[in-house]
Amino acid sequence: MRLSRYFLPVLKETPADAQIASHRYMLRAGMIRQQAAGIYSWLPLGYKVLKRIEQIVHEEQERAGHIPLLMPTLQPADLWRESGRYDDYGAEMLRIQDRHERDMLYGPTNEEMITDIFRAHVASYKSLPLTLYHIQWKFRDEIRPRFGVMRGREFYMKDGYNFDLTKEDALHAYNRHMVSYLRTYERMGLTAIPMRADSGPIGGDDTHEFLVLAPTGESDVFYDAGVTELKLGNREIDYADHAAVKGVCEEFTSLYARTDETHDEALYGEIPEERRRQGKGIEVGQIFYFGTKYSDPMGAMVQGPDGQKVPVHMGSHGIGVSRLVGAIIEASHDDKGIIWPEGVTPFHVGIVNMRVGDAACDQTSEALYGTLKTLGLDPLLDDTDERAGAKFATQDLIGLPWRITVGPRGLANGVVELTSRRTGESEELSPEAAAAKLAALYEGHL
Amino acid sequence: MRLSRYFLPVLKETPADAQIASHRYMLRAGMIRQQAAGIYSWLPLGYKVLKRIEQIVHEEQERAGHIPLLMPTLQPADLWRESGRYDDYGAEMLRIQDRHERDMLYGPTNEEMITDIFRAHVASYKSLPLTLYHIQWKFRDEIRPRFGVMRGREFYMKDGYNFDLTKEDALHAYNRHMVSYLRTYERMGLTAIPMRADSGPIGGDDTHEFLVLAPTGESDVFYDAGVTELKLGNREIDYADHAAVKGVCEEFTSLYARTDETHDEALYGEIPEERRRQGKGIEVGQIFYFGTKYSDPMGAMVQGPDGQKVPVHMGSHGIGVSRLVGAIIEASHDDKGIIWPEGVTPFHVGIVNMRVGDAACDQTSEALYGTLKTLGLDPLLDDTDERAGAKFATQDLIGLPWRITVGPRGLANGVVELTSRRTGESEELSPEAAAAKLAALYEGHL
Repeated sequence: MRLSRYFLPVLKETPADAQIASHRYMLRAGMIRQQAAGIYSWLPLGYKVLKRIEQIVHEEQERAGHIPLLMPTLQPADLWRESGRYDDYGAEMLRIQDRHERDMLYGPTNEEMITDIFRAHVASYKSLPLTLYHIQWKFRDEIRPRFGVMRGREFYMKDGYNFDLTKEDALHAYNRHMVSYLRTYERMGLTAIPMRADSGPIGGDDTHEFLVLAPTGESDVFYDAGVTELKLGNREIDYADHAAVKGVCEEFTSLYARTDETHDEALYGEIPEERRRQGKGIEVGQIFYFGTKYSDPMGAMVQGPDGQKVPVHMGSHGIGVSRLVGAIIEASHDDKGIIWPEGVTPFHVGIVNMRVGDAACDQTSEALYGTLKTLGLDPLLDDTDERAGAKFATQDLIGLPWRITVGPRGLANGVVELTSRRTGESEELSPEAAAAKLAALYEGHL
Repeated sequence: MRLSRYFLPVLKETPADAQIASHRYMLRAGMIRQQAAGIYSWLPLGYKVLKRIEQIVHEEQERAGHIPLLMPTLQPADLWRESGRYDDYGAEMLRIQDRHERDMLYGPTNEEMITDIFRAHVASYKSLPLTLYHIQWKFRDEIRPRFGVMRGREFYMKDGYNFDLTKEDALHAYNRHMVSYLRTYERMGLTAIPMRADSGPIGGDDTHEFLVLAPTGESDVFYDAGVTELKLGNREIDYADHAAVKGVCEEFTSLYARTDETHDEALYGEIPEERRRQGKGIEVGQIFYFGTKYSDPMGAMVQGPDGQKVPVHMGSHGIGVSRLVGAIIEASHDDKGIIWPEGVTPFHVGIVNMRVGDAACDQTSEALYGTLKTLGLDPLLDDTDERAGAKFATQDLIGLPWRITVGPRGLANGVVELTSRRTGESEELSPEAAAAKLAALYEGHL
């Protein structure tokens, strides 16, 4: 993309009502615009990040064998009356009447609807195991929306639902989700720690939240410092192998890590003192096993191998896709702006043409732009007539991990400058070498 | 995907309340499930088609230089009060009150919101031309939803908005949209004819609808038979070239083609009698030029080259993404089921293993499945233990353009059978030759 043709409305001033870094930077970098309390438009740069995150979530869900579909945003109230949640859910549920005065709601989650789909179409254990998921806009009418997209009202969420014949199979699905989530967050450059949590309005016995450590988090967390060192890395995982998947889960949950909801001072005290940590965390996902909580009242039964009809064992599993945009910024920024991890950056590299109109600068910038696109990269070329200082400030603000500076002095020596946003370190390279280095840096992220 | 692991709930019976082919086949092929009147879940097969169509729309919009963003589904009523449409829109607008009793609505379209984004961030003609678009769920509270996704209440639409300094530039944007739409529909295997139309609640002088001819269409259309012969094909189009783009539009609009809204018997009578046609059409898109209808009342002004502030010239341009799924089926089916065009098929080819458990059949099916995936194709392998007749019926119903039949008799001679869904013609080929032929057939569609 050429910046002169793009829509990137960066703001010079810090918006007054934005209390945390991600909210401030998303507004200043022209990523979002508030349309109503807790309701945002995703401007082009923000939309690109949202889509990159969504794509990673899809890829890791499909890798785990989960099947995508798409349920609507609006739901009939009657489904929620079957489970008893229509009355229980409270004022966060946005209730709507259509022109025929039928009770509807804007879905805050989808346990009832997916159970309805399942009971309509599946009758035998032979169709199991089955995990269906979707990524769709949800609405929760927060009484006090705040922190930008971190606690918005209209938000984008991945929610998946497993259907299994036995509790044992359902717990494998639970574990499979935990591992797929760990991989999902790592690909986004995040350390998200699974912590035993409270089940809240979803219900159920087993549940873990995934928390990103950040001083602006809304959850109090208590953990063994060792949990922040754990990495999945590139290890191969066979998601069909119950024992292997369980082993990974045990590795990531055996050290103490809990939110204040389930915190246990006695257990916490058993951690060696130098490894005890307290802090704040941002919740970016949660997994639940809740057995037959929905299948029982809604009659989602399958015929087992013995011919008997039994309610399916279920769980639900969510990732906050729009919230992740904010959480990643909270975890990765400095006083100049955002620092995107390579996995989710809206553009892979910014090319700054220092002297637009200079034949050598224009020609090299354009040639680099073309070469990078040919290599499968997505560059942003600053071809505007802004001053150099303003161009660098914009690059720092929008936080692309890499910048190539094309200026007349360097070109006189046949070089451009490649700069890391994270470290600030630069090196001089021929344009060809810079392109090749970027292609290598992004290997595995394309 | 292996069918044994997929969620494809095909129905044997024809649903009683489905009046048209697309609705019947989408239900029977397990593509959708109705959740409320005019509100559908997109089951995995339907979701895949929806995503393929969305992807083509995105690619052609970006090719035309239009920039994607994403506006929310819910909008504040105040924006619509500024344009005067809050009161005008009538009962099709779904009006909502949040917990603080603020008036909201589920967006049926986005002229107001995009104008709000523009006026907040653009002040100079130097930022023009600019076209922003999104693909988002919309809601229109139809009094009598019918025909499945063709006239649903919650529907998926691409809507784009151009902002230009002059009427001349805005008419170029109008023409550019017309050409990009023609290419979009052709890639989906559709002949969609631009017809002069009436502007309705959007307003404006110039508007064309794009109609797919089908006996089940809701619009009466009158046209010169010559319009159905026009093809854009693979010609290169420079979207920045006003004259070239206008030339394509003239080619596609010079022959008579109108809906009943603008039909003119006298002009129709001038068509040579043997080329006069009357029929029914399905509207799959519409483009509008409406000048300053929204920028004037909402104060979306830019400073021109002479320093004077002037309201921007705008237009809006929509493609019915979810409706297209139905329209394509209306245009392409037979009495056995759907016949997907190559550009939008949910899977590229079905592999039917005729004798699961037979070592040669299993091995060849699996090898073909792997080879096709390596070639970048997306095959559906029927590895279930259904009878051959049921397997073929499912393949015909879900309408993949190509089928490979792997059976013991063929394998004894080293061949499999490659069958076209459209023509029913088969040929015997080695598995390797079948894979190579499919890769060639899908060139340009991957």
